[in-house]
Amino acid sequence: MPLYDVSMRIRPGMLAWPGASTPRQGWDTRLDRGEESNASNWFLGSHSGTHVDAPAHFIPGGALLPEVPLELFVGPATVVELGGEVARIDRAVVAGLRLGEDRRRLLFKTSNSARRLDREEFDPTYVAFTQDGARALVDAGVGLVGIDYLSVECYGARDFPAHRAFLGAGVPLIEGLDLRGVPPGRHQLHCLPLRIDDTEAAPARVILS
Amino acid sequence: MPLYDVSMRIRPGMLAWPGASTPRQGWDTRLDRGEESNASNWFLGSHSGTHVDAPAHFIPGGALLPEVPLELFVGPATVVELGGEVARIDRAVVAGLRLGEDRRRLLFKTSNSARRLDREEFDPTYVAFTQDGARALVDAGVGLVGIDYLSVECYGARDFPAHRAFLGAGVPLIEGLDLRGVPPGRHQLHCLPLRIDDTEAAPARVILS
Repeated sequence: MPLYDVSMRIRPGMLAWPGASTPRQGWDTRLDRGEESNASNWFLGSHSGTHVDAPAHFIPGGALLPEVPLELFVGPATVVELGGEVARIDRAVVAGLRLGEDRRRLLFKTSNSARRLDREEFDPTYVAFTQDGARALVDAGVGLVGIDYLSVECYGARDFPAHRAFLGAGVPLIEGLDLRGVPPGRHQLHCLPLRIDDTEAAPARVILS
Repeated sequence: MPLYDVSMRIRPGMLAWPGASTPRQGWDTRLDRGEESNASNWFLGSHSGTHVDAPAHFIPGGALLPEVPLELFVGPATVVELGGEVARIDRAVVAGLRLGEDRRRLLFKTSNSARRLDREEFDPTYVAFTQDGARALVDAGVGLVGIDYLSVECYGARDFPAHRAFLGAGVPLIEGLDLRGVPPGRHQLHCLPLRIDDTEAAPARVILS
C-alpha cells in the first residue's frame, strides 16, 4: 500500500504567507555543546506549512480547532485534479467536476503542486477558490476541503469571501497540501493537526494511503 | 470504528519536563483587535506533550527525524497494559509479557495514564524503562516503543541508559501517550509528527483505531 506524505517540510526560510510568522529553531540542549542530548524548540505560525483552519480563524464565535470533530480529518477522501488551464476555482469549474456521491472530503490538486508549492518565494498567482466556487462546494454538501497552496483564498480578494463561505458553513480547511505525485481519485486521508487547545488553526502532518 | 485520540492537549502550563521549553501562544492577528482574522503562533519544545524521539536525540550522528521512515509510525500496534504494581519496566517485567509474533510497535500503558499524565505537576515517580528492560525489548525485535509519560527513562537514571539502548538500536520512541480509556491489544496506529526538517524530535498527533 503506497503511503503519500502530502505535508510541506517545515524549516526556516520555507514558503510562507507574506508577513506571517515563520519557523525558527532554537535549542534547549545540544550534544555539541557538551550537554546530555539534542533537544530543540520551535517557533511556528499556526498557519506555517501544511495546516488546518477551524471556523474561528475568520468567524467571530466560530468553532476552535478542538471543537471540530477529529473524525472529519480521517477517512475516505477524493483528490480532484484540475488542469493547468484552471486559474481560479469558480462555480463553473465546480459545476464541471464529476463529484461522486461521497463529497465529505475533497482535496484539490492544481497547478500549484507542480509549479509553486516547492519554491520558497511566495507566488501570488496561485490557484484558489472564488466566493461562488466555495459556495458551490458548500451547496454540494462538502464536509472538508483541501488545497495545494497556503490559502483557499485568491490573493488579494477583498474581505476573504472563500474563507467566509467555507468556515461560515462549518467546513474546515487544509491548506498547504503537497499533492505532487498523488494520483487523482479515492484515498484514505489521515490529517492530524497538533492537539492544541484554544487555537483557530494548527500545523498538521497529512498522509494519504 | 472507535477512534482514540491518545495525544496530550497542548497549552501553556501543561505538564512538562523540568526545565524544558513549554508552550507559549502569541498572535499575528486577532479579530478582537479589529484585524482581519485570528492567526496565532506557538513556541513549543520538540519534546512538549506527545512527541517522537529520533536517534539523534541522544546518539551523536544518529538519524534525524526526517530520516526515520514514516511507515514505522503507521500500522498495527499492540497496547501492552501493565498493572499498577509495576513501578519500573525491567527485564523481568518484559520476560513476563506474552508478546505476540508482531512486535513492531509496542505501546506501554502503565499506571501513568490513570494517575499522572493528566496532572500539570511533574511526578518523578512515573513508570519507565530500566536499561535491561529496554535492552530486552530491543533483543525481542521491537521496532517502535511508546510510553504514557514524558520519558522512557526512569527519572534521574545516570547517563540515560534506556534512551541509549532504544535509540542506539534505531528504535524511535513515542513519549507522552495518553492511553486512558484504550483497551489493551491490537490497534491501528497513526502517529504523525510534524514534518520538521533537521530535528531530533517533534510534537505529534497520535490516534489509535
